[in-house]
Amino acid sequence: MTFAAQPCGAPLSFGELWESLLPIGRDPRTGGYRRYTWTEAGLACRDWFETAARDRGLPAAADRNGNLWAWWDPTPGGDGSRAGAVATGSHLDSVPDGGAFDGPLGVVSAFAAIDLLRERGVTPSRPIAVAAFAEEEGARFGVACLGSRLLTGVVTPDEARALRDGDGVSLAEAMTAAGADPGRLGPDEELLGRLDAFVELHVEQGQALAVEPGAAIGIAAGIWPHGRWRFVFTGRADHAGTARLADRRDPMLPYAATVLAARECAERLGTLATFGKVRAEPGGVNGVSSVVTGWLDARAAGPGDLAGTVTEIRAAAVAAADRHGVGLAVTTESATPPVGFDLALRGRLSNVLATAGVPAPVLPTGAGHDAGVLAARVPAAMLFVRNPTGVSHAPAEHAETADCEAGVVALAAVLEDLACR
Amino acid sequence: MTFAAQPCGAPLSFGELWESLLPIGRDPRTGGYRRYTWTEAGLACRDWFETAARDRGLPAAADRNGNLWAWWDPTPGGDGSRAGAVATGSHLDSVPDGGAFDGPLGVVSAFAAIDLLRERGVTPSRPIAVAAFAEEEGARFGVACLGSRLLTGVVTPDEARALRDGDGVSLAEAMTAAGADPGRLGPDEELLGRLDAFVELHVEQGQALAVEPGAAIGIAAGIWPHGRWRFVFTGRADHAGTARLADRRDPMLPYAATVLAARECAERLGTLATFGKVRAEPGGVNGVSSVVTGWLDARAAGPGDLAGTVTEIRAAAVAAADRHGVGLAVTTESATPPVGFDLALRGRLSNVLATAGVPAPVLPTGAGHDAGVLAARVPAAMLFVRNPTGVSHAPAEHAETADCEAGVVALAAVLEDLACR
Repeated sequence: MTFAAQPCGAPLSFGELWESLLPIGRDPRTGGYRRYTWTEAGLACRDWFETAARDRGLPAAADRNGNLWAWWDPTPGGDGSRAGAVATGSHLDSVPDGGAFDGPLGVVSAFAAIDLLRERGVTPSRPIAVAAFAEEEGARFGVACLGSRLLTGVVTPDEARALRDGDGVSLAEAMTAAGADPGRLGPDEELLGRLDAFVELHVEQGQALAVEPGAAIGIAAGIWPHGRWRFVFTGRADHAGTARLADRRDPMLPYAATVLAARECAERLGTLATFGKVRAEPGGVNGVSSVVTGWLDARAAGPGDLAGTVTEIRAAAVAAADRHGVGLAVTTESATPPVGFDLALRGRLSNVLATAGVPAPVLPTGAGHDAGVLAARVPAAMLFVRNPTGVSHAPAEHAETADCEAGVVALAAVLEDLACR
Repeated sequence: MTFAAQPCGAPLSFGELWESLLPIGRDPRTGGYRRYTWTEAGLACRDWFETAARDRGLPAAADRNGNLWAWWDPTPGGDGSRAGAVATGSHLDSVPDGGAFDGPLGVVSAFAAIDLLRERGVTPSRPIAVAAFAEEEGARFGVACLGSRLLTGVVTPDEARALRDGDGVSLAEAMTAAGADPGRLGPDEELLGRLDAFVELHVEQGQALAVEPGAAIGIAAGIWPHGRWRFVFTGRADHAGTARLADRRDPMLPYAATVLAARECAERLGTLATFGKVRAEPGGVNGVSSVVTGWLDARAAGPGDLAGTVTEIRAAAVAAADRHGVGLAVTTESATPPVGFDLALRGRLSNVLATAGVPAPVLPTGAGHDAGVLAARVPAAMLFVRNPTGVSHAPAEHAETADCEAGVVALAAVLEDLACR
């Protein structure tokens, strides 16, 4: 590790910070996390962020969309309100039963990178911000990257306030209950105007770095286009012991056919298609369902492949529904175009890491990130940290401590280059 | 209607009693019922039963298993504790979003038949009991006919007390919370020994009577063997945007293959197989599931056909799980042998109705009933009331008022024959 020649190669603060976040929202039964936005666990994550900022003397506050920002602006009178800031960070919320790394690694590494720069006596000439974006996973309200989408105006405040969780609680109600003001939601041009760059560090969610030995760190090329589609199959509830098969309109059957068609189609086209959420109503063991709702997550290298994948799956669903006398409504819940990260910024990251002797291959990814949303407004880039198994969104998600520390060192080098020169 | 020659052909009390029960546990959104055992709606149904009994001067009480009994025993000093009783009734609980008729029609008709006999001045020489069995649908605790199975000892008290609902609440906890004593659960030989016959009136859950014009009433031949099997597919949670298809162990895929295999197998063998309940964990839209659990309801004309159906479906599930690197555990949640109702009692019902000029064809059924459980210990029989659409276990479940009233008249004739001669 080239940075070992520096006064402090591996920041001592990383492990301690990491450990302090680990217990929050962890399900002791599975070891997975349920850190949902504006819930008790979500609020505990916000407290953790504010404590981490306060411990470092960094003024911190939520923006109007519930995203948290902590500012390091050591110039006389500096409070981060100047233009030209360099931001880093990620998110703290999780998918249901998610891993410890997806999101939090970027936030913990951001604080640790600041600690490392301070230990080395580096003083930034621009403000450096640590951000934690709200509802990145969309696990509670169904829209991924909700905090960054609100900030950039991609989702309107009215749309956001009306989103409801699985219990029917709206975002507006959840924010109010948590003491936040949903009336302030909306784009924030003033804040965006102050940012000159955003660099998100994230655990890799595949095995590309793991299969190339020695690469603990990668740089994102771009993000595949992706989206979520809701398939509502409406049949007719019936008694499972008396309704003849021929008389049934059982929506579970076209749902099952669609799941299999999605896999077959994605394999053939080299894309990704997943049904990970399903709901059968009324849900009795001894009854034919009235409605089965399945959610398709689809991703592809390009918009044409993605559209082709969804079109084929929808056609298979329509055909299967017709065969069983079942109605079908397909709704697009989200659709995210491809993101190519800023080439100049990406090149600067590559140069910094190459100069530091850190091998950092460039990788595409199928996962959405706040950096991808911000990229539409601010030069953005991403660093990935090696994931030995590639598992993510699951309790087994993992990164070695040495690789996490290498990530902090790499991020510190990038921040020094962007904000201190 | 031959009984129209009687002083009171259609009992006036039916409509009023029926109307008084209709609002309880009804979901205004769907029009369906959620009358689950030992819940607020379930307790309101029990209050309704006790009020109906009290209004008629019939002493009523719960047995040790939460089944309700009201006794008409007009002999001097009679309180129903004599041997030789004739029982009728059904259940008041519902499946999720069930119809108004499945269960309640038999209980309301039982009270109305007693009213009719009284109006006609008939005095029974044997006690007549009206019963409402607990948890017939198994909608809350997963075991159908739980009240009658406990009464007859088919389910043990320890098994029953440990059953849990979807929220993890045990039957013992639910009974205690409702003021009932789970310590008293168990077989009741004394009560069973007093019953000489049980006749359950029930809405038909198919269209056999509807397709034969003029038959408002049918007599049950027997109940198909049936059961419930839980299929737990265990894969590995993963990120839907980054895990390669080839690396996945997605349990949704073998679940879907099993749903389709079950339908194909049941069609080929002339049996019934239904997946009406499914649960995906962790249930995030952008994640591959770790576990998918599906529940199979299977029924057939004979035990051999049923075993063949389940064996084939299980084999298809094993093969599909293997193809996707997914584990599978199949558990039998319930298995009910075929029931042939008592031939002598059935013949007596046929004779009574024929004498009264009521056409009453004999039908088999795929639906389980408390009468089928009691049949192992007490001569039992069933009357069906025509269902014009055949829909059951759904809000659209229906029977015409004239047919319901014909059911009351038929039941009164049967009770008069069995208990008054």
